[in-house]
Amino acid sequence: MSKTINIGIVGLGTVGCGVINNLSRNKKNLKKKYGFDYKILGISASNKTKKRPINIEGFNWYDNPLDLTKNKEIDLIIELVGGEKGIAFDLAIETIKNKKGFITANKALISTNGKILSEISSKNSVFFGYEAAVAGGIPIIKTLKSGLFLDKINDIFGILNGTSNFILSRMNSANKSFDEALTEAQELGYAEADPSFDINGMDAAYKLSIISALSFGEFPSLENTSVTGIEKIETIDHKFAKELGYKIKLVGKSTLINGKISKEISPMLVDEDSSLGKVEGVSNVVCINTDYNGTLILEGEGAGEGPTSASVLSDIIDFSQGTKSHLFSKSFEDLTDSVSKIEISNRCYYLRTFLVDQKGSMAKFTSILEKNGISIDQVIQRGGEHLKGEKNSTPVIMLTHPVDTDSINSAFLELINTDLISLNPIFLPVLKDD
Amino acid sequence: MSKTINIGIVGLGTVGCGVINNLSRNKKNLKKKYGFDYKILGISASNKTKKRPINIEGFNWYDNPLDLTKNKEIDLIIELVGGEKGIAFDLAIETIKNKKGFITANKALISTNGKILSEISSKNSVFFGYEAAVAGGIPIIKTLKSGLFLDKINDIFGILNGTSNFILSRMNSANKSFDEALTEAQELGYAEADPSFDINGMDAAYKLSIISALSFGEFPSLENTSVTGIEKIETIDHKFAKELGYKIKLVGKSTLINGKISKEISPMLVDEDSSLGKVEGVSNVVCINTDYNGTLILEGEGAGEGPTSASVLSDIIDFSQGTKSHLFSKSFEDLTDSVSKIEISNRCYYLRTFLVDQKGSMAKFTSILEKNGISIDQVIQRGGEHLKGEKNSTPVIMLTHPVDTDSINSAFLELINTDLISLNPIFLPVLKDD
Repeated sequence: MSKTINIGIVGLGTVGCGVINNLSRNKKNLKKKYGFDYKILGISASNKTKKRPINIEGFNWYDNPLDLTKNKEIDLIIELVGGEKGIAFDLAIETIKNKKGFITANKALISTNGKILSEISSKNSVFFGYEAAVAGGIPIIKTLKSGLFLDKINDIFGILNGTSNFILSRMNSANKSFDEALTEAQELGYAEADPSFDINGMDAAYKLSIISALSFGEFPSLENTSVTGIEKIETIDHKFAKELGYKIKLVGKSTLINGKISKEISPMLVDEDSSLGKVEGVSNVVCINTDYNGTLILEGEGAGEGPTSASVLSDIIDFSQGTKSHLFSKSFEDLTDSVSKIEISNRCYYLRTFLVDQKGSMAKFTSILEKNGISIDQVIQRGGEHLKGEKNSTPVIMLTHPVDTDSINSAFLELINTDLISLNPIFLPVLKDD
Repeated sequence: MSKTINIGIVGLGTVGCGVINNLSRNKKNLKKKYGFDYKILGISASNKTKKRPINIEGFNWYDNPLDLTKNKEIDLIIELVGGEKGIAFDLAIETIKNKKGFITANKALISTNGKILSEISSKNSVFFGYEAAVAGGIPIIKTLKSGLFLDKINDIFGILNGTSNFILSRMNSANKSFDEALTEAQELGYAEADPSFDINGMDAAYKLSIISALSFGEFPSLENTSVTGIEKIETIDHKFAKELGYKIKLVGKSTLINGKISKEISPMLVDEDSSLGKVEGVSNVVCINTDYNGTLILEGEGAGEGPTSASVLSDIIDFSQGTKSHLFSKSFEDLTDSVSKIEISNRCYYLRTFLVDQKGSMAKFTSILEKNGISIDQVIQRGGEHLKGEKNSTPVIMLTHPVDTDSINSAFLELINTDLISLNPIFLPVLKDD
């Protein structure tokens, strides 16, 4: 009656140690609620002697993590190293080939290698869990696999990166500059020493590619994805957005349009009262929009030891129950490659520019917009507001009427080649109806 | 390779017909994504000739639904009749005894008979799915069973009844009276001809008892549950709540306090910017609050053909995959009876009364509050506001400082025995920190 799952764990950073702690804390619970016991038969990491929050002396140490895949007694290997290639990839392949279960929190691995992983995990009929790879403690992977969404999903979108959401939240609520908010995030442990992937949108893009694959039956891919980070957002943008009833959030959105999929990561203006507008700090939120099942919204902690290790444990439980599912929503044979890029047409944009203080500049500026088919819904111009180093120009904020991306791009190119503006303008899409 | 699930469906109202439509619409999807086919081998309902949105001529009709449980070819029976006893109960018992899978959307059945259903479904090792019984298209049952919450849940709460939320939303946003909003709900098909269970809190209480069982390992029970409906809320209450920065919502909340569980359904004041405050119309929301996994919030459609049938289909998929789980979070032997009632102590209350227009009434009124240990944080008194038929009294609204339930109850009893007030006062808890 009693079943024991033998586990190997690779990667012993915050999450790896968190998983070991969480397993140990819940040993009785796992037995009572799910009827299985576990043993950790081996652990491995790049550095054996590093100071860690747990004592690893009682565990079998493997210098080479790939040796864990050769241990016939091990049923399940948990990869918490990270990275799209290297040891994480090799470990995944060897684990699957050796017909063991595999669990990972590694979004880059799955996003980059979705096709091969789907193929070989299907061929070898093994369990492959990655609940922890997207949106921390939010069960978005299980929900998308659950069959609640057999009918067409129209779009899936959300706030998928906690670090950038923390930075944007602090710029907005505490009037901090981007650099001050980033420093604060780093001091609180919410941002890495190198936060590039969080702030340039890449982390969110990896995650979007995965939930898009589950929603629309394609292999995950960053191809045909438009990715814009939050680096160019100024504190002043939050102030004006607020005045217009919006907040600025880094949104990932995948939309089905006439059988094609538009994938986009961009700072967007979201209604301050919307599901995305009220998500502050390091939290994440995902909205799934359908015809038959309405809109489902899942909100929770996006990262951290607790939520991430809880997601890993929920995968271990699925493994223990023999849960079978395709790696993405369909079998390898039924998935498609990412189709050609399609842009969302006709949406409103927030435009912020610094117009040089010279006679006639506003007339010239608006005529460029008009020539490119952009018509203006609202304008705010404040003489008193200047950026440091931009004393001879005045911020002008506009909300456009619905317009297509090509018009925005051509207006942008024309504007940066004039002497009308002192800093490149920014155009942020306004998210409609979430 | 190809598996066929043979299904019997009992109950052919909106949801029953919706399930048949949904299955038929997604026949290919079920095969491609989950590898199984299905056949409906029999249907049954109380009235064969009733006008229905689907043509039932092609199906085998059973006059006695219990005969479906004797058909050896049927693997799975779906009960969409409703009711805590009668045919729904008999069907559940006979299905389980005949070792077939059972799926239901019937919250009353599960809440009332949780103990016996847990015992016999465990003894017979059968699949028992009830995702559709709580919060429509929100996957709250699967999420609570998923193992994301192995560690202690502190409390679980939310808006669990769409009809009452619609009524409260319309009273608030369109300034309608309770009766007008109820009529509107009925006209839109959101409320039954007899809406008692929706507005008196019983429907929400059934649902709360189920998610509380899953969260805290007790048999579901309405015992020791404090249930207050929305019937006594006046349009004026929404107006004053708004002035104080709150909305009035029918909240179900189950809280673990020193090993005991407080279960309560009551209209409460919730912060207008909170997760509950934002949920309007027939939507539902559930918040799960933990130490290790933060707070997870699930929001979506609470009822209706689409969401409810989608939840039933997600259970059919679990059945097809051989998913095994306890009926509630633990095995029958490990579940406990509902423990003795414990009240939430020390919280703030909204108090609305109609004070008769006579000299000294305010002084007498406040001295009764003071005598009962209730101290006042905010007061609004508006001479111009009257209820129909309450011309000789003035509404007085107060927000109290934190106080225990006993003090509220004793003040209430004392007040209604004076001639100070013209209508029983209402005390609504203020929900903290959601």
